[in-house]
Amino acid sequence: MAEQFLNIKNLKFILHDVIATDDGHREAAFAGKNRKTIDMVLDAAYDFAKKELHPIFEEMDRNQPELKDGIVKVHPKVKNIMRTLGRDGWIAAGFSEEWDGENMPASIIHACSYIFAAANYSGSVYAGLSMGAAKLIDSFGDMALKQEYIPKLLSGEWQGTMALTEPEAGTSLSDMTTEAVSQDNGSYRVKGQKIFISAGDHDAVDNVIHLMLARIKGAPAGVRGISLFVVPKLRQDVSGTFVSNDVTVTQVFHKLGYRGAPITELSMGDKDDCHAFLVGEVNMGLKYMFQMMNGARLEVGMGAAAISTAAYHAALNYTKSRKQGRRITDKGSANPVSIIEHADVKRMLLFQRAVSEGSLALILQCSYYEDLITILPKEEREDYHFLLELLTPVAKTYPAEMGILSTSQSIQCFGGYGYCEDFPVEQHFRDMRIHTIHEGTTGIQGMDLLGRKVVMNNGKVLTLLGEKIGETIAVGKKVSELSEMAFSLEQAFTLIASSTEALGAVAMEKGAEAFLADATLYLEMFGHVVIAWQWLKQAVVATEKLSSEKIKKMDKAFFEGKLSVCQYFYRYELPKASTIAGIITQGTATALSVEAVHFS
Amino acid sequence: MAEQFLNIKNLKFILHDVIATDDGHREAAFAGKNRKTIDMVLDAAYDFAKKELHPIFEEMDRNQPELKDGIVKVHPKVKNIMRTLGRDGWIAAGFSEEWDGENMPASIIHACSYIFAAANYSGSVYAGLSMGAAKLIDSFGDMALKQEYIPKLLSGEWQGTMALTEPEAGTSLSDMTTEAVSQDNGSYRVKGQKIFISAGDHDAVDNVIHLMLARIKGAPAGVRGISLFVVPKLRQDVSGTFVSNDVTVTQVFHKLGYRGAPITELSMGDKDDCHAFLVGEVNMGLKYMFQMMNGARLEVGMGAAAISTAAYHAALNYTKSRKQGRRITDKGSANPVSIIEHADVKRMLLFQRAVSEGSLALILQCSYYEDLITILPKEEREDYHFLLELLTPVAKTYPAEMGILSTSQSIQCFGGYGYCEDFPVEQHFRDMRIHTIHEGTTGIQGMDLLGRKVVMNNGKVLTLLGEKIGETIAVGKKVSELSEMAFSLEQAFTLIASSTEALGAVAMEKGAEAFLADATLYLEMFGHVVIAWQWLKQAVVATEKLSSEKIKKMDKAFFEGKLSVCQYFYRYELPKASTIAGIITQGTATALSVEAVHFS
Repeated sequence: MAEQFLNIKNLKFILHDVIATDDGHREAAFAGKNRKTIDMVLDAAYDFAKKELHPIFEEMDRNQPELKDGIVKVHPKVKNIMRTLGRDGWIAAGFSEEWDGENMPASIIHACSYIFAAANYSGSVYAGLSMGAAKLIDSFGDMALKQEYIPKLLSGEWQGTMALTEPEAGTSLSDMTTEAVSQDNGSYRVKGQKIFISAGDHDAVDNVIHLMLARIKGAPAGVRGISLFVVPKLRQDVSGTFVSNDVTVTQVFHKLGYRGAPITELSMGDKDDCHAFLVGEVNMGLKYMFQMMNGARLEVGMGAAAISTAAYHAALNYTKSRKQGRRITDKGSANPVSIIEHADVKRMLLFQRAVSEGSLALILQCSYYEDLITILPKEEREDYHFLLELLTPVAKTYPAEMGILSTSQSIQCFGGYGYCEDFPVEQHFRDMRIHTIHEGTTGIQGMDLLGRKVVMNNGKVLTLLGEKIGETIAVGKKVSELSEMAFSLEQAFTLIASSTEALGAVAMEKGAEAFLADATLYLEMFGHVVIAWQWLKQAVVATEKLSSEKIKKMDKAFFEGKLSVCQYFYRYELPKASTIAGIITQGTATALSVEAVHFS
Repeated sequence: MAEQFLNIKNLKFILHDVIATDDGHREAAFAGKNRKTIDMVLDAAYDFAKKELHPIFEEMDRNQPELKDGIVKVHPKVKNIMRTLGRDGWIAAGFSEEWDGENMPASIIHACSYIFAAANYSGSVYAGLSMGAAKLIDSFGDMALKQEYIPKLLSGEWQGTMALTEPEAGTSLSDMTTEAVSQDNGSYRVKGQKIFISAGDHDAVDNVIHLMLARIKGAPAGVRGISLFVVPKLRQDVSGTFVSNDVTVTQVFHKLGYRGAPITELSMGDKDDCHAFLVGEVNMGLKYMFQMMNGARLEVGMGAAAISTAAYHAALNYTKSRKQGRRITDKGSANPVSIIEHADVKRMLLFQRAVSEGSLALILQCSYYEDLITILPKEEREDYHFLLELLTPVAKTYPAEMGILSTSQSIQCFGGYGYCEDFPVEQHFRDMRIHTIHEGTTGIQGMDLLGRKVVMNNGKVLTLLGEKIGETIAVGKKVSELSEMAFSLEQAFTLIASSTEALGAVAMEKGAEAFLADATLYLEMFGHVVIAWQWLKQAVVATEKLSSEKIKKMDKAFFEGKLSVCQYFYRYELPKASTIAGIITQGTATALSVEAVHFS
């Protein structure tokens, strides 16, 4: 499989020319690294992805993890991937020098995730999970915990996990029952079950370190009684020997897709001997975890953007090479044309680009805000913090929800072949489907956006976003090819303001349930508008580039293509925002007037 | 698996109370069979589906067909299914007494298909294919062909197929190269390849009979040179012994879903010994095949409606039993509620019903027109013929395209469990995905609708449809709960008329390519409007039923539920039609201004 799975030029364009041009903070945000240095990082990631990840994209799917003799067996090459990513510093990249890291900015880390996930989504998650676990320990753990766990997590020798969900507590974390009992030595003993734990056990690493939420015996009920622990699969006994820590894998799930990574069910403390080590303070677990959760949600969005990108490139390659039919205007011709010549196929390709490249841009935008938050003085930081909080549910959901449609259109471009395992698109379609579920379902993201984020800071966060989008609109209005779209975006943004206001009135009059009943659709509307902004940003830069006299022929086609996709977005996708605004502001959601008994 | 996969009461309601009430022709259309008799047929089908098909729904998926020693091995129970459906008269039901059939009306046959496909889509297609092949022979073959093939096809001993597609001729049938050479004895020898042939070979039957399109040597180029042949896997030699007919299975495809049925690649005439028998007249093959194709397209739509129905019922069952979280208004409560109590879950269930029951109604509507065409005198028949032609691409596509979204929402109702093989919805999602592809992709259906069907009879067919929909609107306007929706439907139908007119102007000005560039979206818009009609029809009857004083409590909930889904459809789905109308009447499709070189 030497097939192209992304366009590295496009990634660099969006990162350097579209996103990191903001605010004059580029150099600081990128930790002083110049474009050339960053491109070398991206090229190296691309090289690794092509050589190590992409060749086993199908293999990992066809040979899914199995539980054998209490251990989850994964594809034999996972070990090499983890060790190489560790050895070459990829897992540690975002950490400080203390851990041999490079303080790599979040946007570059996310850009690399995009490359890895486009090559092989399942293959890319192992290292990402270790990174997240190490980050949690680094942020909140004491020095002993850090020294014990971080180096091995970053070297790829140990696997990190995030262990939140329980069989009876998925979305509703407050119902968590896993219990930790304090011991004389300062450690805890844990007892309980966790479910759907990604990379919760496997044989490519020497140990698995669970960052686990549990309730300390006697803690307050609900989410205020949840603490964060490190629970290793193997722990060191007094002699320094690694012994079993009484964590049992009870199941590995067989899934629709994302099959190269094991999702496990775990049982802790069957023999009353599962030791756990508190991270930070008691009862602060959910707060700590949620600090990581925002990053994890952006990662999910990036995974979705990457999968739709790879599926688009498979479809593009196929539609350029497959000959079938004639152009409608050219019935008499003897030879069939490439199917990319058919208008309906071009429309499907435009849609796939609109989704995948729009998603990529939005997530890089959020990551760049992450970087700005890190480097800016406190007083300048707040705006970006609010923007990041506001946009995270959108950046998680738009790529995931629209990615289902986008990969479905990739299949459609292949016709019958797309439905067969001989081509990669059916796998992309399957791999994609997890993203509206994990790290908070779309329903949860909608309630987060409308119920929490939009009302932050007395609702001023929407004004902030309006200012940011307004900057793009102002530039767009001055460019003749773009001014119509700039006006459309201005109009579309007012939809957010007006529907938020209308829903606020519903909240006052009818209460929280009515306010949030259609929050999922509100989120969908929000997504269309925000992605429209990201497309206008790209179009503005593309227009500038096209106006240069020195432009190369190949670059010309690239930037003209960007303008076409932007136009497609404004004509075919953005109108959906106003339809949804109309739907959600009708006063009462239909769901509220129907009861369980009405369904049969 | 004793889980419910459909609501038989709902099927009977739509068939008897909503669809077959039209036009005063019910009795004739149903061949004199009264409601009780028909319900016995449906109950028997449901019983068979529960006992024989549904229990192996997953098994057939997990043990997909494999090519071994030149023969495709399928699930061992397929043989029993075929023989039972043959023995009990299901395959022959739609045929005349001559073939031990019962002249069963098309609407009843389709209703049974719905039941079988909801239980186990893959398991249901074998018999349907035999039925279609036998029908083709019955319609166009000579008596010798009929006597040789029909009885064994209808008994379930032999498998029938439709063999159209070739590796280089999928959508573009005119590029077909399989060649037939006339022999002295009146038969033909065939040479060529066919691909994606459903049930193209398997070990559950004694013979496979391909209804195959091929080009007779010297025939005109293009579609006018295509003839229809019977090509058996085994043919009788002079002594009456069955011998190989030189049809080789070269591949069985591994697919995303629909895995219980083998899709094969066939090679004919590798040893120059593949005998073929002409059906009807030379060069009439495509015309014959397309007479069956309409029925096959309705069957695809029905398969999609059935799968979304089954997925909805799985989701309904889960959301009623799964407890998680509390109602927003009830944070303090100790016990979690069933997730069906959450507004977002109810919204997802409403959507699934809107799609699956709306689809079912539309296909039964079309089938009923089929029946009316059969029984009405010639002069009254024409209107229904045109309506059926017009609605077929819609009835094929809406259930298929929206079914992808509907089964996706079924997964979403389960959260993480929906992504796992432990529950049936991930399989429904995979099984669904074939329907926008086989028997003509969505792109083809769109061009068929806008390019051929709408312009039939000087465009008067739209007026005809307007009259039919107008009848429903007129009744709806008189019912206070429905009058607003009736006005919305009236408004929505004008969108079809006005966008058709606007696109007609584009055709005049810019030619056929511009006219058809967004035909897929035109079809989508058309679907929303036509399904709105089907929902208003259901709501009208539900209102009548609810006004009866004798109504039982359970029935009351059922009919109130219907009204809620109808309201959901008008508030949440129908508005999409006007968005699309706006998009496709902008003057020029974006796809036309972009070239292959712009994609990278």
